[in-house]
Amino acid sequence: MITAEIIAVGSELLLGGQTDTNSVFLAELLAEQGIEVRFKTVVGDEIDDMCGALTVASKRATIVLVTGGLGPTVDDLTREAVAKVTGKSLGLRSHALRSIKARFQLAGRTVSENQRRQAFLPSGSYLLRNSAGTAPGFFLQWKRCQIFCLPGVSHEARRMFTESVLPILIKKEYVGLPIEIRTLHTFGLIEGVIDERIKGVVPASSGIRLGMLASPLGVSISLTMNHGLNVVKGKASKKDENKNKALLELYVDEISRKLVSSVYGFDDQTMEEIIGEHLTAKGLILALAESCTGGLIGHRLTQVPGSSAYVDRDVVCYSNQAKRELLGVSERLLVKHGAVSAQVAKAMAKGIRERSAVDLGLSVTGIAGPGGGTETKPVGLVYVGLATPKKTFTKEFRFHGDRNMVKLRSSQGALDVLRRWLVGLPISEK
Amino acid sequence: MITAEIIAVGSELLLGGQTDTNSVFLAELLAEQGIEVRFKTVVGDEIDDMCGALTVASKRATIVLVTGGLGPTVDDLTREAVAKVTGKSLGLRSHALRSIKARFQLAGRTVSENQRRQAFLPSGSYLLRNSAGTAPGFFLQWKRCQIFCLPGVSHEARRMFTESVLPILIKKEYVGLPIEIRTLHTFGLIEGVIDERIKGVVPASSGIRLGMLASPLGVSISLTMNHGLNVVKGKASKKDENKNKALLELYVDEISRKLVSSVYGFDDQTMEEIIGEHLTAKGLILALAESCTGGLIGHRLTQVPGSSAYVDRDVVCYSNQAKRELLGVSERLLVKHGAVSAQVAKAMAKGIRERSAVDLGLSVTGIAGPGGGTETKPVGLVYVGLATPKKTFTKEFRFHGDRNMVKLRSSQGALDVLRRWLVGLPISEK
Repeated sequence: MITAEIIAVGSELLLGGQTDTNSVFLAELLAEQGIEVRFKTVVGDEIDDMCGALTVASKRATIVLVTGGLGPTVDDLTREAVAKVTGKSLGLRSHALRSIKARFQLAGRTVSENQRRQAFLPSGSYLLRNSAGTAPGFFLQWKRCQIFCLPGVSHEARRMFTESVLPILIKKEYVGLPIEIRTLHTFGLIEGVIDERIKGVVPASSGIRLGMLASPLGVSISLTMNHGLNVVKGKASKKDENKNKALLELYVDEISRKLVSSVYGFDDQTMEEIIGEHLTAKGLILALAESCTGGLIGHRLTQVPGSSAYVDRDVVCYSNQAKRELLGVSERLLVKHGAVSAQVAKAMAKGIRERSAVDLGLSVTGIAGPGGGTETKPVGLVYVGLATPKKTFTKEFRFHGDRNMVKLRSSQGALDVLRRWLVGLPISEK
Repeated sequence: MITAEIIAVGSELLLGGQTDTNSVFLAELLAEQGIEVRFKTVVGDEIDDMCGALTVASKRATIVLVTGGLGPTVDDLTREAVAKVTGKSLGLRSHALRSIKARFQLAGRTVSENQRRQAFLPSGSYLLRNSAGTAPGFFLQWKRCQIFCLPGVSHEARRMFTESVLPILIKKEYVGLPIEIRTLHTFGLIEGVIDERIKGVVPASSGIRLGMLASPLGVSISLTMNHGLNVVKGKASKKDENKNKALLELYVDEISRKLVSSVYGFDDQTMEEIIGEHLTAKGLILALAESCTGGLIGHRLTQVPGSSAYVDRDVVCYSNQAKRELLGVSERLLVKHGAVSAQVAKAMAKGIRERSAVDLGLSVTGIAGPGGGTETKPVGLVYVGLATPKKTFTKEFRFHGDRNMVKLRSSQGALDVLRRWLVGLPISEK
C-alpha cells in the first residue's frame, strides 16, 4: 500500500495564528491519485526537530511531502535538514541559480547572497521547477522513501505538485484510482437525529468511511471510498471505478431519501450558489431586508460571481427608524409586537419587495446577542420573512451559540426558507 | 526544557474538509504557561497509526496532548491505543460510568453499550472529568512522558485543559513564564516594504522570533519571546518577566514608528472593534452604502456586540436603480462617470449620510470580478467615499485577487479610510 505523510515546516504554524492549510489541498490532490495521507506533521524551523520529523516520516510513509523552509532566510532549513538526514552534501545547482536570477532580472533586482542559498540542493536530488516563485523544490529518493520538498507558499506548492510531483508519481506507478468522496449538506437537523435516521444505510463491509461535520451552516455528511487498488498496477480498471462509483451513488441517494428535504446541496455546492441557480433558472429578482444578520446574507449571496443579475438590493435596518423609513414597517406593529417578531419579519419582507419592485423579498429579524435577550425573547430567537408574488411566509428559529454563530445560522435559515420555496417544498416540514 | 506535542486524532482531519483547530488553541494555552509545542501530528482512526504516533511523541516530548478518539463509536480508539503502547489493560471506571449515566439521565436517556465503552480507561491512569460533555479524558504518566487524552470536541477539550490538565502541570512544576506574543496589524503595505522598513529593528540576539502573516485584511507582524525559564523552578521571577515584557514593548513601539499610520491595531483587536471604539468614544452614528462589498462591511461591523448603538443602517445597492432610489445618486452622474467612479462613491456617501440623518456616511463601489472589468476599469478597481459633517473624501484602491479577496480588501480599505478620519490622520498618507 502506497501511503503518504505531509510535513509542514514553520514555527508560525505551531504558534502565531497561522494554520497549516497546504496539507489540506495536498491531501486532496494525493487522494485524487488514490494515495492516502496517513500522517500530517507540523514542525518549527529547528534543524533537530525537522530531522526528527523527516526520520520518522521516511520510516512510515512511501511518499513524504515537505512544505515550507525553502526560502532565502537563515530560518529556512529544509535543504539542510534533508541533507543531514540522508547523509548528502549541499551543492550549488547552476540551473536553479539561473532561474532565480532570471526571475529577479524580470523584477529589475539582483540576487543577494541569501537568495543564492536557495540554489544549494542535496546531492543526488532532482530539481523541481518553481514556475510561480523563486524557491526551487527538489525530489530525493532515500531508502524506500520518496521525499518531495515544496515551497510553503500555497499557490507555489500547488503548482509544483501538479507540474513536477505528479509526473514523477505517475512514472513510478504509485498512482491508482482516485479516493472517491461524496458529501451531502444538510440544514435543520442535528447530528444525533441524522445518525438515527441513516443508521445502517452504509454497511461497515462496504469499506466506505462515513463522516459527519457540524458547523453553524448545518451538518455535512461525507462518504469516502478508497478503492485500495493502487498497489498493483493494472488492477485498477475503469470498470472497478465505475462499479464503486455507482455503489457510492446508491448510498448517497439512500441517505438523501432518509433526510428528505433537509439536504440542500452536494459536494462543492454552497447554499448561496444553489439559491443563485434557482433564481437564475426562474428569472426571479431578490431584495433583502436584514436586521440581526447585519449584511451577512447580502455578503454571502454576492460571493457568487454574476449575483448582480438577481440580487437587486439589501437594506440593513438596525434601527427601528430605518425599518420605518426604508421598509415602511408601521410604528404600531413595532410597538405592539416588538422588532423581533413574526409580524415585523412579514412586514419587512413585504416592504422590501414592494419598495424595490422585485419578485421576492427576504427578511430576517432576531436577537444575535450577547445582550438584548429577555425571558420571552431570548438570544437566538430569529424570525425569517419571505414575500412572494402570491403569499408571504414567516418562520421562527431558535438558535444557540455566540453572536457570530447566531448570525451565521440566521443567514443559513433565511436562505433555506428561500430555497424551500424555490424548489416547491413546504417552508417548515423537515 | 519542557516541551509538548499535540496529537489530533481523526480520519476526517486527514481528508474530508475538517482541519485540526484544537491544536491551535491548545498551543496557545500551553504557551501561556511557558510550554512550547514543538510538534503537531494528525493521525487517522487507525490503531496502528495511532500507536505509532504515540510512540514517537512520547520519545520527543515531555507532555503529549491527544485530542479526539474518546467517543462511543468503534472508530474511537484513543483508549485502546494508549493502553497498547503503554502495555496497560483497559478497565471499567465506576466513577466515569456514573457521570456518563448522570449526564444521560438529565437528557432522559439511558446509557447504551457503546456509551459504556467511554468508561473503560487504561490501568494506572487518572480520570479527567468532562464538565461539558460525556466522554471522560484521562492522564497517564509513562516513562518520562505525561500523556493527556482530551475529547475532540473543541469546547470540551478547552474546558478540560483549564479545569484538569493545567492543575496537574502546575503541581508537577512544569509551568513557567508565559511565552509572550505581541502582534501589530497593518493595512496598506506589502510584506516586502514592511520587511525593508523594519529590517534590523529586532536583533537576532534578542531571542525574539519575528513573523509576518499576510491576509486580505493586511499584514500582521508578530513578535514571540520565550523566556525559556521553565526548566528550573523559581528561576522564573516576576522581575525577569517584566524586563522581557518591557523589551518586547520597546520593539513593538519601534516597529510601529517605522510603519507609521499603517498600523491599525494590536494583538486581538480587529478593525471593526477599533472603529466601534472610536465611534462610541466620539458619539458618532454611521450609515453605510455598499455596492461591490455586498453587505460585508455591515456584516463585519455588526459582528461587534453593541454595534447597534452606532450602526444605523446599511444600504446595499447593486443596481443603478437602487443607487438612484435609495441614495439619490443622479442618473447624469452614473452615465457620465459610471457606477465605479470617485464621483459616484462621493455621491453614495453623501446620499446615505443625508438620507439617514446620521453623522457619517461610508460608501464603496468597485469591480469585484471575475466579470465586469474593462481596460480602463479593471477588476479590483474600488472607490471608497466618506461623508463627514464638513467634507466628503474619496480614495481609489486597486486590489488584486479573486472575488472574495477583492471584497475582503475593499471592506478593509473602506474601514481604514474611516479609521484614518476618526483618529485625525490624512486619508491617503502611508
